[in-house]
Amino acid sequence: MGLKSQEKSEAQELAKEETRDKESESELPTIHKIGVGLDSSIIPIRNNLALVQTTDFFYPLIDDPFVMGQIACANVLSDLYAIGVSYCDNMMMILGVPDNMDEKERDDLIPLIVEGFKYKAKEAGSKVSGGDTRISACCIIGGTATSVCEISEIIMPDNAIVGDTIVLTKPLGTQAATMINSWLENENKWKNISSVISKEEAKWAFQRAVKSMVQLNKIAANLMHKFKAHAATDVTGFGLLGHAKNLARHQKNLVQFKIHSLPIISKMLDVDRLLGNQFHLEDGKNIETSGGLLICLPPQNAAAYCEELKKLLNCNAWVVGTVVEGKRMALISDNPTIIDVID
Amino acid sequence: MGLKSQEKSEAQELAKEETRDKESESELPTIHKIGVGLDSSIIPIRNNLALVQTTDFFYPLIDDPFVMGQIACANVLSDLYAIGVSYCDNMMMILGVPDNMDEKERDDLIPLIVEGFKYKAKEAGSKVSGGDTRISACCIIGGTATSVCEISEIIMPDNAIVGDTIVLTKPLGTQAATMINSWLENENKWKNISSVISKEEAKWAFQRAVKSMVQLNKIAANLMHKFKAHAATDVTGFGLLGHAKNLARHQKNLVQFKIHSLPIISKMLDVDRLLGNQFHLEDGKNIETSGGLLICLPPQNAAAYCEELKKLLNCNAWVVGTVVEGKRMALISDNPTIIDVID
Repeated sequence: MGLKSQEKSEAQELAKEETRDKESESELPTIHKIGVGLDSSIIPIRNNLALVQTTDFFYPLIDDPFVMGQIACANVLSDLYAIGVSYCDNMMMILGVPDNMDEKERDDLIPLIVEGFKYKAKEAGSKVSGGDTRISACCIIGGTATSVCEISEIIMPDNAIVGDTIVLTKPLGTQAATMINSWLENENKWKNISSVISKEEAKWAFQRAVKSMVQLNKIAANLMHKFKAHAATDVTGFGLLGHAKNLARHQKNLVQFKIHSLPIISKMLDVDRLLGNQFHLEDGKNIETSGGLLICLPPQNAAAYCEELKKLLNCNAWVVGTVVEGKRMALISDNPTIIDVID
Repeated sequence: MGLKSQEKSEAQELAKEETRDKESESELPTIHKIGVGLDSSIIPIRNNLALVQTTDFFYPLIDDPFVMGQIACANVLSDLYAIGVSYCDNMMMILGVPDNMDEKERDDLIPLIVEGFKYKAKEAGSKVSGGDTRISACCIIGGTATSVCEISEIIMPDNAIVGDTIVLTKPLGTQAATMINSWLENENKWKNISSVISKEEAKWAFQRAVKSMVQLNKIAANLMHKFKAHAATDVTGFGLLGHAKNLARHQKNLVQFKIHSLPIISKMLDVDRLLGNQFHLEDGKNIETSGGLLICLPPQNAAAYCEELKKLLNCNAWVVGTVVEGKRMALISDNPTIIDVID
């Protein structure tokens, strides 16, 4: 078998989503993201320093092991970046190697995943020291990121105020793009969607998704300091609305996040509509991997934030919402503006 | 299904052992235990502090979820304790919840695993903040432990000298005891071993193993400072000899570790001999979970170390070997003394 088992992966994603819904409703198991922070735990330690850390694991999304390692690394780091912490002292990697993977595949693939993870950690100015690799019933890729920093280096994610603008730094639709890409070689699957998307468009969408998933949110985090961000989170498995709700729930002020625009990788929404909202792009439950930062910042700084990010990374960020008065909830407007992401 | 799937677990253990052998022979994937340390990674950070951390995950061994959580926690912490670091600033927990576990089981078991983990972390004077829970094809329990400390609080594991005595702080045979316990209700399995062990003896061995696995190596770590230990590691999945070899390989001096005694939970060796060395108790490849510290310390301090540990914990530690001249290897003597652990 290859790294990817798409059918299984679909089932797992659904199961995962189901648990997440449950998790957000019930008290347990809520070990995910407890602590002072939202995306990372923040622990006061000696010398007036803070220990900031996060852990995350998931299943392979794509067939390229080197790229998969990079995505896993960027995804783990993203939780630090979401609170403005842009320096990571150390990462540890967790790998579950499938027990039905033969020795040759193992020897070919696993080192590449590890190398991809290390490559991206190096780009982030961090290192990978420590970890755990184990034969497992399923393929698991994950890791931890730890930073020891001054409290002043952290942007606590609970200070959104009425009037703030909400910015998103990566487009939506990574799960749709990776899934659709896997259907290219499966004529039965492909014929269901070929009326709305060409193979070239599907390949482009996949490349755009990969470019987005491997991109570090580090510069986006740095700019949060410069442009006085009040609160942020990163968009991953709970979807845009799920993460917006989590962020809203943690606010000190009586605010509500109103999402009025959805920047979506081109053609993904057409496919999603055809398939009856399978990827949940319009209702905000779209599962993303290594997604962008969702940032509340003063309205007068929003355009400058997006411009500077574009200048530094050559990637767009978009104004997607506003902070209004409310009861710490988040919602997507009726008929949100769809931003067709074509570059 | 229950938490435990013994048959699968046996296969996994075998597969795991196989990979480990490979890992120790080849260059990749050696992300396990790289870094300056042996059991934990040690990263110099700001203010002349060190970031010491470790991560570990495995599969459930026993049916009691609260106890399983405790064992997982003690097992993760053990890597810090092995280098003398007895204070842990933060732990994160990783949980893979099997996708074939029904909702009721999940709601009953998962909170108890989390509570067990937290309970043990509290006993250790640490806390659990952060983590990741996910629906998974297999049940995974693990975590990370992180300490930010002064370099002086670390006992680097590479200073063993000729003449040192080697002490082990927990008995061997935890895997055998848990496996045999699971056979109590399976007459087909049980009849194969009933000639050498009674059901009462099997139950006692299991209780002794659980007592050992939930016990923190924290006091053992503290006493390493008092009694001037030169090097230590903890005994887990690679077995006594595997970990002794790893430790030997990292020594600065040209030394060899000679293990002359094996303290084994009573009756486990009889069963192992009957089953043709299935648990590898005599050849040192016995897989242990949350095992003891294996410590090289000055010979004049060994007895005092064991006595003080006994006084503080009411648990025995044993002199199991000596450090001699050699090429950074470890071996078990011919006809080692078997210490029958009966209390």
